This record gives sequence, structure tokens and C-alpha cells, in this order.
Amino acid sequence: MTLMKRSVAELIGTFWLVLGGCGSAVLAAGFPEVGIGLLGVSFAFGLTVLTMVYGIGHISGCHLNPAVSVGLAVGGRFAWSDLPAYVIAQVGGATLAAFLIWYIAAGAPEFALSANALAVNGYGPLSPGGYSLAAGFVTEVVLTMMFLLIILGATDKRAPAVSAGIAIGLALTLIHLISIPVTNTSVNPARSTGPAIALMTGGYGQAMGQLWLFWVAPIIGAGLAGVIYNLFAVADEPTEIEKLGGKVA
Amino acid sequence: MTLMKRSVAELIGTFWLVLGGCGSAVLAAGFPEVGIGLLGVSFAFGLTVLTMVYGIGHISGCHLNPAVSVGLAVGGRFAWSDLPAYVIAQVGGATLAAFLIWYIAAGAPEFALSANALAVNGYGPLSPGGYSLAAGFVTEVVLTMMFLLIILGATDKRAPAVSAGIAIGLALTLIHLISIPVTNTSVNPARSTGPAIALMTGGYGQAMGQLWLFWVAPIIGAGLAGVIYNLFAVADEPTEIEKLGGKVA
Amino acid sequence: MTLMKRSVAELIGTFWLVLGGCGSAVLAAGFPEVGIGLLGVSFAFGLTVLTMVYGIGHISGCHLNPAVSVGLAVGGRFAWSDLPAYVIAQVGGATLAAFLIWYIAAGAPEFALSANALAVNGYGPLSPGGYSLAAGFVTEVVLTMMFLLIILGATDKRAPAVSAGIAIGLALTLIHLISIPVTNTSVNPARSTGPAIALMTGGYGQAMGQLWLFWVAPIIGAGLAGVIYNLFAVADEPTEIEKLGGKVA
Amino acid sequence: MTLMKRSVAELIGTFWLVLGGCGSAVLAAGFPEVGIGLLGVSFAFGLTVLTMVYGIGHISGCHLNPAVSVGLAVGGRFAWSDLPAYVIAQVGGATLAAFLIWYIAAGAPEFALSANALAVNGYGPLSPGGYSLAAGFVTEVVLTMMFLLIILGATDKRAPAVSAGIAIGLALTLIHLISIPVTNTSVNPARSTGPAIALMTGGYGQAMGQLWLFWVAPIIGAGLAGVIYNLFAVADEPTEIEKLGGKVA
Repeated sequence: MTLMKRSVAELIGTFWLVLGGCGSAVLAAGFPEVGIGLLGVSFAFGLTVLTMVYGIGHISGCHLNPAVSVGLAVGGRFAWSDLPAYVIAQVGGATLAAFLIWYIAAGAPEFALSANALAVNGYGPLSPGGYSLAAGFVTEVVLTMMFLLIILGATDKRAPAVSAGIAIGLALTLIHLISIPVTNTSVNPARSTGPAIALMTGGYGQAMGQLWLFWVAPIIGAGLAGVIYNLFAVADEPTEIEKLGGKVA
Repeated sequence: MTLMKRSVAELIGTFWLVLGGCGSAVLAAGFPEVGIGLLGVSFAFGLTVLTMVYGIGHISGCHLNPAVSVGLAVGGRFAWSDLPAYVIAQVGGATLAAFLIWYIAAGAPEFALSANALAVNGYGPLSPGGYSLAAGFVTEVVLTMMFLLIILGATDKRAPAVSAGIAIGLALTLIHLISIPVTNTSVNPARSTGPAIALMTGGYGQAMGQLWLFWVAPIIGAGLAGVIYNLFAVADEPTEIEKLGGKVA
Repeated sequence: MTLMKRSVAELIGTFWLVLGGCGSAVLAAGFPEVGIGLLGVSFAFGLTVLTMVYGIGHISGCHLNPAVSVGLAVGGRFAWSDLPAYVIAQVGGATLAAFLIWYIAAGAPEFALSANALAVNGYGPLSPGGYSLAAGFVTEVVLTMMFLLIILGATDKRAPAVSAGIAIGLALTLIHLISIPVTNTSVNPARSTGPAIALMTGGYGQAMGQLWLFWVAPIIGAGLAGVIYNLFAVADEPTEIEKLGGKVA
Repeated sequence: MTLMKRSVAELIGTFWLVLGGCGSAVLAAGFPEVGIGLLGVSFAFGLTVLTMVYGIGHISGCHLNPAVSVGLAVGGRFAWSDLPAYVIAQVGGATLAAFLIWYIAAGAPEFALSANALAVNGYGPLSPGGYSLAAGFVTEVVLTMMFLLIILGATDKRAPAVSAGIAIGLALTLIHLISIPVTNTSVNPARSTGPAIALMTGGYGQAMGQLWLFWVAPIIGAGLAGVIYNLFAVADEPTEIEKLGGKVA
């Protein structure tokens, strides 16, 4: 597939990730009495990825996330030259989705924009549970690193290909189950950027001021995973005996 | 399989979609203290499709939805000549299920019919969160379009066949996680028609008066998906070099 | 495998179904503030079957349910002569589990047995939502019929074998999402019998008096499914043209 | 793979199990109004295993649990000589994760350590529902035994390999759905040890005093499963007729 077609797939996929994940958080999480809560939002984020892996995985690889693209490049699975087009498409799709969520949410009688609307990511005053910058930074580094280790493992030639989408999607669900109270969970710079841009155009620039963390921490984590995976997980060199056709106990 | 047998499969499958999805909403969502809520209803709708893909997918393809049949026809995956029989079977199954839910629900001591009973779809006064017609229309178009893009991708020859049911079923779960508060989530004209007909026979015609939106918007979305998928996702033409047996970097 | 080994597998599997499904309902559903609710119980029941299909499916076929054994026999997939051993093992495993749940539950400070303890099935006064006998009977017939149609379809040679456990397990989850308020959901005579026997030995015979419904209705539903599946889902006879090696449009 | 590389995989995997399972319990389960509850924690534990089976299963087999390693050794699927390295790695990973959860949790404004913080396992005063030692012991033995039976079955050569991660991960979810109120659910000595060590360094030694149960009971259960599986589930010896190439009815 051409880079253009693959980038369109990434744009559509990341649009879906933000529309599904942030959209469910904004529209359905706190619905009176029967709302889906943080558990439902966690499933929503994971299912955007699970469904898109099977929907566009065969087209673009379904990264939907600049940190994933970087981690795969560090791990030697993705061409650095394709990175800019992928990242632009991902941020574009995320931003489109954030504006659409805003439009739909505004169709309800009592909607009002605020500094922590549209499911933005943040720390301190923008953290759902009031968690500190340090706690947020560590959380984002570690969880993105684990996310990438799972992605690198589940797409390894030695793992069954058909289950990769289930493993990767549900890994994102799990990451949200752990950390929504801390940073509202990013592990994805594009997912953080879309709502921050939309809020800024609405006069709330606070999330934009914290956005640096949600680019720096996930990318550090993803890079670490690329390095670590190649240290412990890559198959051993065949021994001299094996090269000669023998077997080692 | 004959068109008759495939239509019977569609009737049974769509009966199951409405019995499971709308039935769980009516009977279990608001059960005091331990009710399944919108999260449970979202899973119920998705699981009707997931289970039926494996149950009847090999018979009829398991559309269970006139918008899906139209989207697949636009995408070149379904014969237009089979469309009428499929749609009639789908609406028939959905209507049968709506009456059965009504019968079972009436077996509880305090049951009473009302304008928004039987999990009907609607906007304005019939929207669970009071969302406007415009918000509802946009939501139904976009979500049906995304649903069809996932279906077209997950059933593409390049995607693993065994996981299609999981991807498509859980896509419907995700769609409900986002949008139950907006329109009670349709993306499926048959699913909207069954409860509207049943309510009308009970003296509540409001949902019938809004039914046009749940035919028009999903079908527009599905048609869009069929066109878009063929633009960005279809494999590139082989180049002259490839036709001659060479490889492109 | 010998019938004895296969029966042991059925006993262990049905023990797991009741321990997981009824056990989660008794111990965790109503836990203050963070209890798993009917949604959690629905997943628990489904996951008992999903896990056991992969755990013992290759040994006994993993019926765990007299209605399933009957439905498969009617559909021509199970030998009638093996039915008695399977049913005895299933009821035995279910009863063992019911007594174990009782033992564990009694380890909590405020436990007290009652007529609707141990997650028994029932109608009228024993229905969680007070549903009538007629509503319960219809619900059990229809849901067991749909359950067996999914089982027959998902284990059809034309469906992918690897996904059968997911489809069948999550079908049981879906059935519980719909109908716990109605009858506490049986669709399985063995699952109903275990708790009823345990309660009777504790001096509460009411569930035992309603047990007939949870044998009659599920078995009617399962038998219906066996007949219906063979009517609409079995592949057409090859035509004269096909027998000669030709193709039909 | 070398034992060193496999042990690193076990350390990372068990780190993930405790970070995901205990982390979600500490950070998200009781979040006001929209917390994930015991249902979310149950999914979190299961998804740590599901994701890691696909992430590192091809490297170390993905035990993440000393009881699993013992059960597989008893069942003849794992070398006893590798057991010490695996157990050390598992306990190390679990302890690392417990300290990380503590660090992150302390980033919230109102955090305070207590005897039953960090999602420790326990009975009597440390049981979430106040369950007795006897109830806790029986629960841990039986649930670990069932867990291992599912693992042994799902990784049997006769079961489909691709679904093992789903079956085993969701079995752990199911086990938590049943038993969090009883012992906070262990079935895994490493998972119990990590939080107990962390709490002890914080001045709360109560969980450490109960830790023996969460080594003894799971290992008894796992050993039982290894023995039982080989009794009822191993394929029959071929008969004399079959050895000669004939078939038995």
C-alpha cells in the first residue's frame, strides 16, 4: 500500500480511538444511575484498538499512536522515514474526533465546556484524582513501556498472529483500568493532543500547557520498550551445534 | 444455501439482536442496586452479533441489519438482488422480538408501557439524554459509517477470518458505549423498527414518528463506508514491475 | 476417551459452572459499594463455559448441561446412549458445587440461609423481579432454544473451530444479561438442581417445588433447536449438476 | 531461550500482573461514583495474564505464578530444575510492582497506608468480607486447582493453541469474580508476597503474618490438579486393535 493510503488508514483509526474512548467518557461515563463508569471507558478505549487492528491492520499496521510508531521504529519493525506522515495523520484524526465529540455533546440540554472537559489528560488540578506531576510522569512512562512490550511480543513471528488485536486492544483496556484516576490515561500523544486543541479553541488552554508530558513520557516509555525487547526477547543466536543441524537439550 | 434458508437465518439472528440488546435494556439495565446499566446493555448488543456470526455466519453472512446489507452491497460484497428478502427478514425478526420482550416484561408486577419503553430509539424527548435531532443524526451517520468500515476491513481477505465475529460484535458494543445517551443507539433500521411497531400497537406512536431518522442516517453512513473503503483500503494495482514477477521496495 | 473419563470431565466442568456462576452471585454480586452486580454474574457464568470448552472440550465436548446434551442428541451430534451418564455427572458436579458455596458463604460473619439463597432459580416469589410462571416458562424455552442454535452453529464443520468456546461462553453471558431478573436464569437443569438440593437439606424446599420448570422448559427449548437447525441450517443437497462436478450460480 | 532470558520474561510478566491487578484495585476500584469496582479489578487481573501470554508466552511460557510453575511440573510440563529461578523472578517482579503502586498512590492528596492497603490477601480481619481462615483456605485450594486444570487443558496438544491466552486469562478473571470478598483472591503466592513485603517495610506486618496460607493453599491446589489431570484427561492408551491400525467404535 502507498504511504498516502496507509496514512489515511491511520487518520481514520485514530479518529475512532478518540471518538470511542473520549466520546464514551464524555457522553456516557457519568450518565445518571446507569452510566458506564471508568470500567466502560476502559473497555471503549481498548475496543477502538481491537476493532481497528482487524479493520485496518492489514493496511497500515494500526498504530493509532505516535508512541507506538516510535517504539516499533526503535524495535526495528517500522521505517523511521514513514514516521512523520503517520504522526501527522494520527494527530489529525484525533483532533477531528475531539471536535466531533464537542459538537455532539453540545446537543444535550445542559452542556457546558470547562478546563477538564472532552476527557483531556492532565496532572495536578487536571488529574481526575488530583495526582502529582511526578506520579503522572512515572505512570505514563511505565504503562507505555509495558504497552509496547506487549505489542512487540504479540506481533512477534513466534506469537499467533490472529490474536494480536485481542491482546493489544485489551492491553489498552487494562492500562485504563489502572490509571484513569492518575492522568485520565494517555500513553498516546495524539489522543492527548486532539482534546487539548479543541479545548484551547474554546478558551481553555490549561490542558495545552500540560501537553508536553503526554508527548515526552509515552515516547520515553516506548523507546525503552524497543531497547528492552531486543535485549531479553529476541531468539538466541543458534549455537555451533545447531548450525550444524544438531539439537541442544 | 438457498435465499429462503439464508433469510430464515437473518430472521432468527435479528430476532436475537433485539431480544438480547433491547431485552437486556428493558429487563435488567435498571434492576435495583445490581442492574447491568448501559455497560451491560452495550455488551448485550455486541454479544448478540458476536454469537450469531459464529452461529449463522456460514449460512447467511450474518448481517442482521439493513444498513449492513446496503453497505456490503455498495462495497461490492453482497448482491443487490438479495437485499429485499434480507431486509424483510431482518425487520420481521426484530418485530417478533419486540413483542416477545413486551410479553415477558408484562409478567412483572409493576410493568407499564410508555412512549420510551421497549428500548426505542429517538431524539429530543425520546433521547435518553435529551439530545437534539441534529446531534442524533450526525451520531447515527458517523457511527454506522465506522461500523461498516470495520466490517469491510475485518471480512477482507487480508484479515484473519476467525476473528471477524469478535471484531464486529465488539464494534457494536463500543458503538453503544459511546451513544446510548444520544439516540439509545440504533445504527440499525430493523432494530429501531421492531420496538416502534410494538409500541404503536400499544397506543404510543411517538417512536414511529421519529423512525425515518433511523432508516436514513444509518443507510447514508453505510453507503459512505462502502465508497470510502474502496478508495483507501483496496490493494493497489500491481505495478508493471510486479506484473512481470519483480518486487517493489 | 472412555465414557467414564468423559463423565468425570463433565462432573468437573459442571462443578465449575455452578461454583463460578452461583458462587459469584452469592459471594460477590451484592458486596457493598463495589459489588460485581448482575453484569459480573453474567460474565462469571459465561466464563465458566468459555474456560471449560478450552479446558475439557477435547475430552467430553464440554456440555455441562443436560439440555445441551439433549439438544445435541436431537441434532444428531451426540449418542443417546451416553446421555444418562452425562446427566448424572452434570447433576453431581452441580450439587457438589452448591454445597461448597454454602460452606464458603457460611465463613462470613453475617451469613444466613433463606428460601432464595444460593442463587436458586425460580418464578413468582422466587423470581428476583417477581416475574410470573408464564413469563419464566417462555423465557427459559426461548433462551435455551437460542443457546442451542448458537452451539449447533458454532460447532458446525463450516464455522471456525477455535472460536466455538468464545461464542458459546459469551452466549451464556448474554442470556444472563437478559434474564436474571426473570428466573435468575437457568437454561440448564443441572445448574438449577444443585442449589435446590442444597437448600432442601437446609430446610428450604421452595426451590425444589419449582424445579420441574427448569427441567421441562430448557429441554423443550433445546429439542426445538435441534429440529429447527436441521431444517434451515444444514447444507443443501448437492444438485444433479454439482454431483457431476459442475457449479450453480 | 536461556534460563536467564526466560526468567527476565517471568519477572516482567509478574510485575505486570501485580501492577495491573493490585494497581487497579488500589487506584481505581473505589474511585467516587464511577469506580471500576470488583468487576473491573477482576478484568484487570485476567487481562494481565491474557496480554502477557501473547506478549511473552513464546519466551517463558508465561507462568507468572509459583503455583502454576509447580502445577505444570507435577503435570510433567515443566522442568523441576528451572523452578527456583522462575519463583525468584516471579516474587521479584511482584515486589517491584507493589513498591511502584505505593509510589504512585502516594501522589494523590489524601493517601494513607494501612494494614489492608496495596490490595493484600488475607483472612479474618484482613479478608474484605471478614471470611474465616477455613473458608479462605478451602477457597484458595479449590480455585487454584481449577485454575491449573484449565491451564493444563487449554495448553494440551489437543486444544487449539491460539486460544490458550484467552482461556487462561479469563479463568483468572472468573476466579476473582468469585472470591475477592473471601481472601481478596490470591491463587498466586508471588502476587501475595509483593504487597505483603511492601506493607511490612511501611510498618504493617499483619499481611506478612498471614502469608503462609497463600503459599500453602495454592501449591496444594496446583499439585492436586497436576495429579488429577493425568488421571482423567490424558488420552487413553491405544488398544491392541488400534496399534494394528484398526478403529474402535
